[in-house]
Amino acid sequence: MEGLNYIAAAIAVFGSAIAAAYGNGKVISKTLECMARQPEMSGELRSTMFIGAGLIEAVPILGVVVALLLVFLG
Amino acid sequence: MEGLNYIAAAIAVFGSAIAAAYGNGKVISKTLECMARQPEMSGELRSTMFIGAGLIEAVPILGVVVALLLVFLG
Amino acid sequence: MEGLNYIAAAIAVFGSAIAAAYGNGKVISKTLECMARQPEMSGELRSTMFIGAGLIEAVPILGVVVALLLVFLG
Amino acid sequence: MEGLNYIAAAIAVFGSAIAAAYGNGKVISKTLECMARQPEMSGELRSTMFIGAGLIEAVPILGVVVALLLVFLG
Amino acid sequence: MEGLNYIAAAIAVFGSAIAAAYGNGKVISKTLECMARQPEMSGELRSTMFIGAGLIEAVPILGVVVALLLVFLG
Amino acid sequence: MEGLNYIAAAIAVFGSAIAAAYGNGKVISKTLECMARQPEMSGELRSTMFIGAGLIEAVPILGVVVALLLVFLG
Amino acid sequence: MEGLNYIAAAIAVFGSAIAAAYGNGKVISKTLECMARQPEMSGELRSTMFIGAGLIEAVPILGVVVALLLVFLG
Amino acid sequence: MEGLNYIAAAIAVFGSAIAAAYGNGKVISKTLECMARQPEMSGELRSTMFIGAGLIEAVPILGVVVALLLVFLG
Amino acid sequence: MEGLNYIAAAIAVFGSAIAAAYGNGKVISKTLECMARQPEMSGELRSTMFIGAGLIEAVPILGVVVALLLVFLG
Amino acid sequence: MEGLNYIAAAIAVFGSAIAAAYGNGKVISKTLECMARQPEMSGELRSTMFIGAGLIEAVPILGVVVALLLVFLG
Amino acid sequence: MEGLNYIAAAIAVFGSAIAAAYGNGKVISKTLECMARQPEMSGELRSTMFIGAGLIEAVPILGVVVALLLVFLG
Amino acid sequence: MEGLNYIAAAIAVFGSAIAAAYGNGKVISKTLECMARQPEMSGELRSTMFIGAGLIEAVPILGVVVALLLVFLG
Amino acid sequence: MEGLNYIAAAIAVFGSAIAAAYGNGKVISKTLECMARQPEMSGELRSTMFIGAGLIEAVPILGVVVALLLVFLG
Amino acid sequence: MEGLNYIAAAIAVFGSAIAAAYGNGKVISKTLECMARQPEMSGELRSTMFIGAGLIEAVPILGVVVALLLVFLG
Repeated sequence: MEGLNYIAAAIAVFGSAIAAAYGNGKVISKTLECMARQPEMSGELRSTMFIGAGLIEAVPILGVVVALLLVFLG
Repeated sequence: MEGLNYIAAAIAVFGSAIAAAYGNGKVISKTLECMARQPEMSGELRSTMFIGAGLIEAVPILGVVVALLLVFLG
Repeated sequence: MEGLNYIAAAIAVFGSAIAAAYGNGKVISKTLECMARQPEMSGELRSTMFIGAGLIEAVPILGVVVALLLVFLG
Repeated sequence: MEGLNYIAAAIAVFGSAIAAAYGNGKVISKTLECMARQPEMSGELRSTMFIGAGLIEAVPILGVVVALLLVFLG
Repeated sequence: MEGLNYIAAAIAVFGSAIAAAYGNGKVISKTLECMARQPEMSGELRSTMFIGAGLIEAVPILGVVVALLLVFLG
Repeated sequence: MEGLNYIAAAIAVFGSAIAAAYGNGKVISKTLECMARQPEMSGELRSTMFIGAGLIEAVPILGVVVALLLVFLG
Repeated sequence: MEGLNYIAAAIAVFGSAIAAAYGNGKVISKTLECMARQPEMSGELRSTMFIGAGLIEAVPILGVVVALLLVFLG
Repeated sequence: MEGLNYIAAAIAVFGSAIAAAYGNGKVISKTLECMARQPEMSGELRSTMFIGAGLIEAVPILGVVVALLLVFLG
Repeated sequence: MEGLNYIAAAIAVFGSAIAAAYGNGKVISKTLECMARQPEMSGELRSTMFIGAGLIEAVPILGVVVALLLVFLG
Repeated sequence: MEGLNYIAAAIAVFGSAIAAAYGNGKVISKTLECMARQPEMSGELRSTMFIGAGLIEAVPILGVVVALLLVFLG
Repeated sequence: MEGLNYIAAAIAVFGSAIAAAYGNGKVISKTLECMARQPEMSGELRSTMFIGAGLIEAVPILGVVVALLLVFLG
Repeated sequence: MEGLNYIAAAIAVFGSAIAAAYGNGKVISKTLECMARQPEMSGELRSTMFIGAGLIEAVPILGVVVALLLVFLG
Repeated sequence: MEGLNYIAAAIAVFGSAIAAAYGNGKVISKTLECMARQPEMSGELRSTMFIGAGLIEAVPILGVVVALLLVFLG
Repeated sequence: MEGLNYIAAAIAVFGSAIAAAYGNGKVISKTLECMARQPEMSGELRSTMFIGAGLIEAVPILGVVVALLLVFLG
């Protein structure tokens, strides 16, 4: 059945978008909360936030790569 | 089965819209809350919010790009 | 199978509507809460709310555009 | 398969109704709560509520428009 | 496939009923709560409740209209 | 496919029953709670409850009407 | 496809049973709670409970009627 | 398709069982809680519990009747 | 399609088991809690528990009866 | 379609296992909690726990019996 | 359709694993909590935990037995 | 339909993995919490944790065994 | 139907990934919390965390092994 | 059915992305919270976070590997 790889690309990009938004949303909102509670630590918190966002986005970005591979297969 | 790529585009755009709205909604509402609690930090909180919104929207925007690719394939 | 692009348009508009309403509902209700707690900051909160609503509605509006493209394809 | 556009119209109107009711329900009930807590701000809160309801209903109204387009296509 | 528009009408009316009941239930129960807490504001709260119920029921009523259109198409 | 309108009627009545019971259940239990907390307001609360139940049942009753239309179509 | 009306009857009765039990369960348990907190109001609370149960059961009873209509159609 | 009425009977009895157990479980556990808090009201609470259980079980018993009708149709 | 009545029996027994366990679990754990809080009322609480368990198990036992009817039909 | 009774047996045993574990888990963990709070009542609590476990497991054991009947039918 | 009994075995073992893990997880974590709060009762709590684990695992073990029966039927 | 036993193996291993992770995650995190609250009981808590993990993993390990049986059947 | 073992491998790896992430996420975040509350116990907590992570990852790793077996079968 | 391995790759990458984002999001946000509460332990907390992220990402990375294997099979 041709066209099934388009569905596959959509599922992959769907999961990646949800995952990246969920994980980043959680980490960044927690960073904002901690920053407001302890302003003197905002540098360290922000650097940890960047490391965290990097760790979280690693797999979703791979998911987008898989999706693009699947789109250009067809 | 032709037309399956339209469904794929819709799934991709569905996930991207939900993800962007969920992630941004969480971060922005937390920013508003922190801003109201600590008005003197509102500059720093707002700049962190922009970075966060950028990090969150990166993957959904890629999802919209994938969706547009899929629409114009048909 | 013809007619599948109509279903796709409906899925896209479904997701966009839910996403925009969820995200905006969260941000605006939080703005109202903060405004009531700190009336002297209502200007700054409202301007942040507009930026936030803009960031949140960006992807759903793209979803509606994709849906309209799909409707007029058929 | 003819008749699929009717299903599509129903899905679009389903999502729009749920979204508008969810978003508006959240914002209006929060407005009522804040109004009861701070009666002297009720004017400003109500005007923010109208802006918010407008922002929230924008996409669902577009969804109803898409649904009507789909009904009269068949 | 004939008869699909009946299913579509049912889905539309299903969503509209759930949405109207959810949104109105939330707003009216919040109004009752606020009224009991601040009896001297009950006039203003009730008028805001009517505006809110109007805003919430707008899209579901459109959904019922779409459903009736779909029923009398067949 | 004949018989599909029966399924449609069932879906419509299913949604209407759930919606009416959910909305009314929420409003009436909140009324009871407020009445017990402020017995001197029970008249006003009960009249608001009747208005609310009317607003909530409007769309589900329309849903039952649509269901009956669908049953007697077949 | 014959036999589909039986499924429809079952869906209608399923929804009606869940709805009636959910709504009544909520209202009656709230009545019990309020009665135990304010024994001197138990008459008024119980009469409100009967009105509430009547309002809640109206649509599910109609659902059972629709179900019985569907059973005796076949 | 013969045998579909058995599935319908099962769906009806499934919903009825869940509904009766949910509603009764809620009301009876609330009665127990209130009885333990106010032992002097246990008579009145128990009589309200019986009325409540009757109101809740009315529709599920009708559901079982519909199920038995459907079983003996085949 | 033969064998469909076995599936129906399984659905009926599935619902009955979940319903009985949910309802009884709720009532019995609440009884234990109240008994531990007010040891002098344990007789009355236990007798109410037995009535409650009887009311809750009535419909699931009917569900098992329907399931056994369906098994021995085939 | 042969083999459908195996699926039915699996559904029945699935529901029974979930139900028994959920109900017993709730009752036993509540018993442990109450026992630790009131060690002098542990005898009475444990005997109530055994009655409760018996009442809860009655329907799931019947479900397993139905499942075994269905397995040895094939 | 051959091979359906393998799916049935998988569904049975799926439910049994989830059920055993859920029930035991709840009971054992509650035991640990109570043990830490009242170290002098740890003997009695642990013996109740073993009885509870036995009661909970009874039905899932039967589910695994049903699953093994189904695997070796094919 | 050949290949169905692979799906069955996947469902079995899916359920086992989720179950083992859920149950163990609950028990071990509760152990850590209790250990941090009462360091002098850490020996006894850890031994109870091992017994609990054993009881929880018993059924999932059987699920993996069933899955491997199903893989090597094909 | 060839290709079904790929789907099976995906389901197995899906469940394993979710399970490992859920269980480990719970245990490690609890460890961090306890470590921050009682810094002098961080050695013992961390060693318990490693045992826990091992117990949790045992079944998911078996799931990945099953998935790889299934991929290289095709 | 060719193309099924693309769907399998998408399911695997979907699960991996969700799992990695969920687990990492939980651990990193907890680390940020603990860091803000106890700034003097931030070194130890961050090193535990890296170990945890490693343990959590192990299985999702294997899931991405399985997905890539499945893409390049077709």
